[in-house]
Amino acid sequence: MQGVDGHERVFDWLDTEAEKRAKAGLTRKLRPRAAASDELDLAGNDYLGLARDKRVAGAAAAAALRWGAGSTGSRLVTGSTELHTELEHELARFCGFQAALVFSSGFTANLGAVTTLSGGESAIVTDKYIHASLIEGCRLARTDVAAVAHADPDAVKHALSTRRKDRALVVTDSVFSVDGDLAPLNQLSQVCREHNAALLVDDAHGLGVLGEGGRGALNAAGLAGEPDIVATVTLSKSLGAQGGAVLGPRRVIKHLVETARSFIFDTGLAPAAAAAALAALGVLKSEPDLPQKVLNNSTRLADHLRGNGFRVSEPQAAVVSVQAPTPEDAVEWAARCAEQGVRVGCFRPPSVPDGISRLRLTARADLTDGDIDTAVKVISECAPPSATS
Amino acid sequence: MQGVDGHERVFDWLDTEAEKRAKAGLTRKLRPRAAASDELDLAGNDYLGLARDKRVAGAAAAAALRWGAGSTGSRLVTGSTELHTELEHELARFCGFQAALVFSSGFTANLGAVTTLSGGESAIVTDKYIHASLIEGCRLARTDVAAVAHADPDAVKHALSTRRKDRALVVTDSVFSVDGDLAPLNQLSQVCREHNAALLVDDAHGLGVLGEGGRGALNAAGLAGEPDIVATVTLSKSLGAQGGAVLGPRRVIKHLVETARSFIFDTGLAPAAAAAALAALGVLKSEPDLPQKVLNNSTRLADHLRGNGFRVSEPQAAVVSVQAPTPEDAVEWAARCAEQGVRVGCFRPPSVPDGISRLRLTARADLTDGDIDTAVKVISECAPPSATS
Ligand SMILES: Cc1ncc(COP(=O)(O)O)c(C=O)c1O
Ligand SMILES: Cc1ncc(COP(=O)(O)O)c(C=O)c1O
Repeated sequence: MQGVDGHERVFDWLDTEAEKRAKAGLTRKLRPRAAASDELDLAGNDYLGLARDKRVAGAAAAAALRWGAGSTGSRLVTGSTELHTELEHELARFCGFQAALVFSSGFTANLGAVTTLSGGESAIVTDKYIHASLIEGCRLARTDVAAVAHADPDAVKHALSTRRKDRALVVTDSVFSVDGDLAPLNQLSQVCREHNAALLVDDAHGLGVLGEGGRGALNAAGLAGEPDIVATVTLSKSLGAQGGAVLGPRRVIKHLVETARSFIFDTGLAPAAAAAALAALGVLKSEPDLPQKVLNNSTRLADHLRGNGFRVSEPQAAVVSVQAPTPEDAVEWAARCAEQGVRVGCFRPPSVPDGISRLRLTARADLTDGDIDTAVKVISECAPPSATS
Repeated sequence: MQGVDGHERVFDWLDTEAEKRAKAGLTRKLRPRAAASDELDLAGNDYLGLARDKRVAGAAAAAALRWGAGSTGSRLVTGSTELHTELEHELARFCGFQAALVFSSGFTANLGAVTTLSGGESAIVTDKYIHASLIEGCRLARTDVAAVAHADPDAVKHALSTRRKDRALVVTDSVFSVDGDLAPLNQLSQVCREHNAALLVDDAHGLGVLGEGGRGALNAAGLAGEPDIVATVTLSKSLGAQGGAVLGPRRVIKHLVETARSFIFDTGLAPAAAAAALAALGVLKSEPDLPQKVLNNSTRLADHLRGNGFRVSEPQAAVVSVQAPTPEDAVEWAARCAEQGVRVGCFRPPSVPDGISRLRLTARADLTDGDIDTAVKVISECAPPSATS
């Protein structure tokens, strides 16, 4: 025991931890943006360029004035407005599900979906590369969790057939956030059905990019609205706002309303964010070609970088990832790009599942060919010597 | 195994669960609000009446137009704007801490603070009535957690002195959300210091209500800014917006930036919410008497209800709780109040730690004496027969 005077040293261990991270090249720093900037953004997840679209930002502003800056309470007390209900109806209808429930973030939507659809009597089987918020959900579920090989239906099949619980929930991302590759949704669904398991798919990076008119990966796979399929989405990427939602059969949504702790014990989404997401859905409906522009841009970006000798992922959605030799190289590379006016994402351990550091690029619908050429030029000039294969 | 056709029945168990809840009187239903309503709101957590204040809602609207409807990425990628930084500076300065970090919700702020300040080498000791989001944080911390008697420094002392880990984190709410009673912060801090533990206090219901000018419970206790004290707050209650923050020593904030999964893997707070919280802090600074109005109103409300024979908590902040005989009575009571134009919160198991159902009332600063008289009259008329002691 350290005694009454030791309280100044109670957090000394944090400095030790910080030194360890610094030695491993894993420090992180916030770099706040200015409102007006000439920077070319290849890092954000505003895939359709809607966050600053006048229709979307204008809807947010109008909603703040009409409904107030916050929702004032949890969804079951005062935090549900008619806006939330309208957004839930529109999301469900657009994506082809029976019902939807809006959360304050995609993160809390994932916590709520995973915990309430599994629990002690249900095994969980996940792809080992699922998003951190799904992993946290699995940890909170306090049941058997098998994290199996990436994008591998046979591995899921094996885990399902050797499980010790009666029920099972299979959990995957649709588009994996780091490399932008796709989960084999139809095969996974087939395996789930053969083994009496439910399938939960995080379509955070699919909504607005994949499927007819951006209706998402489950819509593309013909699985939206099926009785054993649940999707989670975020409102913070293609829809340019903030928040998340769970989409699924009506009884799943009812179950979430009544039991999801990250729903019941959390203040409702701010009206401005709900209105913005609703307006973004409206834009998507009126401009059904917007998603294709994202795919055209990511393909162009990847092709040109690959042409310059980089190890580049095969883009299936908006994300293009470029491997870096080391974490330090990735940081240095991203910093040099920023100095040249191009902002790119820099993903390092522990944010990458396979330990490989990368630049993570996103191809927004509103990038011009000129933007992409500039980006390729800058990224290539800033690359560390051993980045090209 | 059920085979390929059984997929329609994979969620049948949810119906069984729903029937159990229905039998126990524990169903929950969303009741969306209209934008314009004559209802007298005694249920929301907008304690200072700022959510719809023109200065606050106007700041939200302006920020949406200037910065966009969403922050477009995680805080470490593109989701930090200069607004976020300004809000962090102002929050820290106002509450008297070295530094602050803004999260997308109070819920995720609590997850981040608990998990990163404990972990495998640190025991956690909590008050058994802490908020659900802190409990989820404890579960995610994957270490020894002792949940001890409510508001009992001796119980904390015992748990700390019998712990099996070197480090320890003590976790409590400042104002408990259900009954509105206070934690004995100074005694808890004393015990922590005697046992070399850090103290984490969730001041969600204290900020804007307690302390000089609403600087919060830790400021009131003289503990703000101490090297062993960390606070979490929400931006969704007194500040009328959405979001949360952690306040503490600079090294704690650095540690959170670099390691908190609910920070790193979550999209940054929407600019509109950050701007609204910032504007609300400005209002608080220019109207330092606002918090006292909340306390006057909660005292008046509690006194009058107690005078009418109800079992009422002793209000220490905005919350006034009134015990109901049974969960069914609480639901019926709240529904009748709503019919009479008074919205009250209805808390039942499992949202109440002690199993006692209640009406949960909140006394906003902008309630008039006439509003309170109306509320008391309606609540009294709507009470089930056995509600008065
Ligand atoms: C796959 C995936 N799921 C969930 C989330 C969390 O969503 P949000 O940031 O809206 O909380 C993210 C990103 O942040 C994500 O990439
Ligand atoms: C004590 C307490 N902590 C944390 C939270 C979560 O904050 P938020 O709703 O802003 O996510 C709440 C309420 O929702 C609360 O009452």
